[in-house]
Amino acid sequence: MVAEGALLIEAASEAGIHLRSSCGGQGTCGQCAVKVLSGPVRQKASRFPSRLARQGFVPACQTQVLGDAEVEVPAFSRQARDEVLLEDAGGHRPGVLLEADDESQRRYPLRPVVLKRVARLEPPTVDGNSDDWSRLRTALRPDLQGYADIEEVDITLAATAALPQALRGGDWEVAVYAADLPRRCEVVRVLPAAGSPPPLGLAVDVGTTTVVVHLVDLEAGRVLARTGTLNRQSRFGDDVITRIIHSAEVPGGGVQLREAVRETVNGLVEEALAKSGYEADDVLCAVVAGNTTMQHLFLGLPADQIRLEPYVPVACRYPLVRGSQLGLKIHGDAPVLMIPAVSSYIGGDIVAGLLASGMADRPELSLFVDIGTNGEMVFGNQEWLMACACSAGPCFEGGGISSGSRAVPGAIQDLRIDPASYAPAISTIGGGPAAGICGSGLIGALSQLRLAGVIDRAGTFMPELNTDRVRQTDDGPEFVLVPAPDTSHGRDIAISEVDVKNLLRAKGAIFAGARSLLAAFDTDFGLLDRIDVAGGFGSSLSIRDAVEIGMLPDVGEERYRFLGNTSVKGARLALLSRAALERAGELAGSITVLELSLGSKYMEEFVSALFLPHTDLSLFPSVTRQPGVSGGLGSSAAKGGAGCLST
Amino acid sequence: MVAEGALLIEAASEAGIHLRSSCGGQGTCGQCAVKVLSGPVRQKASRFPSRLARQGFVPACQTQVLGDAEVEVPAFSRQARDEVLLEDAGGHRPGVLLEADDESQRRYPLRPVVLKRVARLEPPTVDGNSDDWSRLRTALRPDLQGYADIEEVDITLAATAALPQALRGGDWEVAVYAADLPRRCEVVRVLPAAGSPPPLGLAVDVGTTTVVVHLVDLEAGRVLARTGTLNRQSRFGDDVITRIIHSAEVPGGGVQLREAVRETVNGLVEEALAKSGYEADDVLCAVVAGNTTMQHLFLGLPADQIRLEPYVPVACRYPLVRGSQLGLKIHGDAPVLMIPAVSSYIGGDIVAGLLASGMADRPELSLFVDIGTNGEMVFGNQEWLMACACSAGPCFEGGGISSGSRAVPGAIQDLRIDPASYAPAISTIGGGPAAGICGSGLIGALSQLRLAGVIDRAGTFMPELNTDRVRQTDDGPEFVLVPAPDTSHGRDIAISEVDVKNLLRAKGAIFAGARSLLAAFDTDFGLLDRIDVAGGFGSSLSIRDAVEIGMLPDVGEERYRFLGNTSVKGARLALLSRAALERAGELAGSITVLELSLGSKYMEEFVSALFLPHTDLSLFPSVTRQPGVSGGLGSSAAKGGAGCLST
Repeated sequence: MVAEGALLIEAASEAGIHLRSSCGGQGTCGQCAVKVLSGPVRQKASRFPSRLARQGFVPACQTQVLGDAEVEVPAFSRQARDEVLLEDAGGHRPGVLLEADDESQRRYPLRPVVLKRVARLEPPTVDGNSDDWSRLRTALRPDLQGYADIEEVDITLAATAALPQALRGGDWEVAVYAADLPRRCEVVRVLPAAGSPPPLGLAVDVGTTTVVVHLVDLEAGRVLARTGTLNRQSRFGDDVITRIIHSAEVPGGGVQLREAVRETVNGLVEEALAKSGYEADDVLCAVVAGNTTMQHLFLGLPADQIRLEPYVPVACRYPLVRGSQLGLKIHGDAPVLMIPAVSSYIGGDIVAGLLASGMADRPELSLFVDIGTNGEMVFGNQEWLMACACSAGPCFEGGGISSGSRAVPGAIQDLRIDPASYAPAISTIGGGPAAGICGSGLIGALSQLRLAGVIDRAGTFMPELNTDRVRQTDDGPEFVLVPAPDTSHGRDIAISEVDVKNLLRAKGAIFAGARSLLAAFDTDFGLLDRIDVAGGFGSSLSIRDAVEIGMLPDVGEERYRFLGNTSVKGARLALLSRAALERAGELAGSITVLELSLGSKYMEEFVSALFLPHTDLSLFPSVTRQPGVSGGLGSSAAKGGAGCLST
Repeated sequence: MVAEGALLIEAASEAGIHLRSSCGGQGTCGQCAVKVLSGPVRQKASRFPSRLARQGFVPACQTQVLGDAEVEVPAFSRQARDEVLLEDAGGHRPGVLLEADDESQRRYPLRPVVLKRVARLEPPTVDGNSDDWSRLRTALRPDLQGYADIEEVDITLAATAALPQALRGGDWEVAVYAADLPRRCEVVRVLPAAGSPPPLGLAVDVGTTTVVVHLVDLEAGRVLARTGTLNRQSRFGDDVITRIIHSAEVPGGGVQLREAVRETVNGLVEEALAKSGYEADDVLCAVVAGNTTMQHLFLGLPADQIRLEPYVPVACRYPLVRGSQLGLKIHGDAPVLMIPAVSSYIGGDIVAGLLASGMADRPELSLFVDIGTNGEMVFGNQEWLMACACSAGPCFEGGGISSGSRAVPGAIQDLRIDPASYAPAISTIGGGPAAGICGSGLIGALSQLRLAGVIDRAGTFMPELNTDRVRQTDDGPEFVLVPAPDTSHGRDIAISEVDVKNLLRAKGAIFAGARSLLAAFDTDFGLLDRIDVAGGFGSSLSIRDAVEIGMLPDVGEERYRFLGNTSVKGARLALLSRAALERAGELAGSITVLELSLGSKYMEEFVSALFLPHTDLSLFPSVTRQPGVSGGLGSSAAKGGAGCLST
């Protein structure tokens, strides 16, 4: 039951059906389209896509329930449960797969945030009746050497209260779980030793789009379970800016966002615990990475200054908090440590990424590129680091693209278009019928549409092609990749000119960011020893395609490495190694941020990058020339505009 | 409304009427006597005093309400609201009044647990847009010098969340409240500077019988308000043992006791805030002293091992907790520091007492005697300290004595008995009609009854005295001090032989404890430079009377000092001075405890002290000899027994 007047998207959410949305509930993106089969509803005025309206859909985010109603939720409007890259890295295609874990763990020795020690105590006597906590502290002394001076061992109230029973119930042999916190060591749990569990921890990546949790056995240094899902904040908007506005301008919005992400994390923790057979109280710490906005919203900190000049976050080094303070379903006293951020747009996810990449500990020059809902990159080596964030928008995660999809089963991940017949050959994740097109597929499509002569270098559709795959709609021309009968949902999968222009802006932003970063040092891509690519693309991204469209620099593919979700991986390193945690603090303090919005140089680079591959073809010597088709420089693509840009 | 079947004492408590009780709800002490005027009730079987039953009273702790009932609560059954010594010290009679505050504050310089600093920040710009917390931390650097290295300044989550508004609302000039915690400094509150309050703190003495709160301006080092009341735990029993049993053996008993004392403290805090015009959030720290059991129950720690051999408390150094963890009506993040204890029966109240006494910082030999619900004493100087606890019981606070009362208006505090006519001359607190007899009055009565020849040296009533003030009851003889018509409540105020024997055991326990302590060093009282007397007696205790009955050593009165409530005073010193707080930790670790139950020596001393003044009269050279009346050595008093002893 929902209150009369509630929005359909809210009613669905309460029923456990999470709808997609990328416009923040404005009714314009069409992703939450549903059909009302019966019952009274009221649809607010909105710019809902006409093609959906014609098919009888209404925007769930703009339609109120006025009584009992029967509503059909099409599959394409639902958030898929597993649209998340859980694995650390992969690479069935070019690019060298880096076993980052091995390398990282060599760099950072195992010394977890919470350690377990078994202590055997002498029972008290009338002649030796010191209190339980003194007795335990004394017994721990030899075990905690090297962790903290014994005088600095604290204990929580709950662990103190549990002492008498644990000591006597365990016949004076107890398992002690101590958190190795900055400047002190704190006992957070005491159990009878027999049958006591290992200390568990969580590595959490709170992404704008997806949230990933790794449940880790801190003693063995082993991942027990990986879980991931969409960030339930998505119903309040696809990108950080929409969410910040929601948090600041909708009454109770900040609480909604805070609770949405905490529920998301809690669901993943429960799933991971169920998979591994442990209990919430066994989880004794968490390390959380995420972009600055996500970290603020997760902690419940006001985020509105992040989007307002001069873009000042509340904090970049976050206070130490406890599980119970955040309502997390872990041990109430478990310390929750946030990977520190650098600035409003260089967050803890990037700092964690640097831990996982290791570039900050190598002498060679590297470029780290994290393409998530936004794009961030870091240039440098062990001596210095400079970072920038570019407003790539959510295109490469399927946001703002008509047939866009996340990298889930059914998503087109790769495609080729025959230049003669214009017939596409597609490959979907899982091999089943196509349901949409994900980031790597979109990059492939952009590359292939140009090579087949469907679009020009500015992304404009060529007139009068001899194929019925190109057709005109109210919004301009589109290329049908998969006709309705061959898709899983019975709707055409097409790439429109509007999609192409959005993709151009996204790829242009990334390339312009990288160029600006190197230009700040009068450096060019040729001097890079290595380019680390992180983010949701996973293993399906084709470096060749990314270079073809001018998104990534045209250097040898052997210099590229895919690192997967470096945010969760870096969080896990910090969870498992005090050295990595401390290194994260150092890195956050040593990264210089290049504010792209400050100079006109970035805008010049951006405009130059709005072509396929670029206005300056000498930057892309290896890119296939397409004879006979010349881009119309200065045409529509150069108009820029906000489109799918998130800032 | 109360549930049918509820006890009258509970129903009264819910109605805000707190009844007295000293038997832990057994129905035997008669202190909660009420009259049922109408309505159905059921009285359980109990050994309710027959004199009360004859007058139509029932024990409220053993009588259930079965429907609407009208009940009369006599004044003598009510806990008086103000039966608490709030003032620090006093001495209108012999003994030198020590201005302990002056001396203590000379010893411990003002450096409070929470300090306030006003910081003026440069507003952020696009070129200098570090996060709010970094900006504030940098601005605080010069102000916090000497407190903690700036790298070690932490901040709470709530204070972080409040930063943007405080900084911008305060035009970048803010008041920062930082707690100076062990090994780190933590910002707990940030407000716009203009009009910001001083940092406030609480010094709390959680006594078995009474709870006292001092609300302190930490900047000025000034007490803003003193409040005190009875510990609401009293309805569960008068002494620590009864309460421990209740906490361990009654389901939910521990929670009842925990909540009762926290409610008591909260009521006092609210009253102090109302008096001074501040708000709960202005109170940013608390230092709590109390005996070991009270500290355990206040924190919700299991207390049952305290009373079981080998008498092991859960902790003597307590974890740092926050206001919100304890449900205190102060700032949720306010650190609540407990003065450390030494052992099960030497608690934080005694450690606080040593801070206030200063004996641990002087070269001279001193004896510190704290007579509260139990009696504890410490012997030593700046080199060494030895302590013991003796089971004096609550007699001197009026507990277990038929007409006993706390030191409140109407209580007889002093009296003389004419040896010829046996007519008493009494003096009551406040000068009004007598309502009972408090500790100093009881000591006076014991002394005067012997001097007047009413009782012998063993406390036995002399037979066939020529006065109708002595009369026989079912329970033995009693001496009527004030006949019913002259009292405030219309009942006789009398001292019975049972009372006398209880008082003998109480005073004997104290003297035997002191003797045993000094005997451990082969020392006698003559070597003492000073005897500090602390506790609820306040200013009304007559040293002369206490020596006459053999409770305190027979040394010159000029060596005695009354210090009042040293527990709250020591807590206040620790609140105001980091040096005092650290000294408390050192003291707790350096006090040797003499376990009186271990040797037969104490029992010998105790038996010898069950006479007036003692079996060995050479110990009391100044005591008035009473010619013609010889004590019957080996008679009834020597039988000992539990009586009002609490262990």
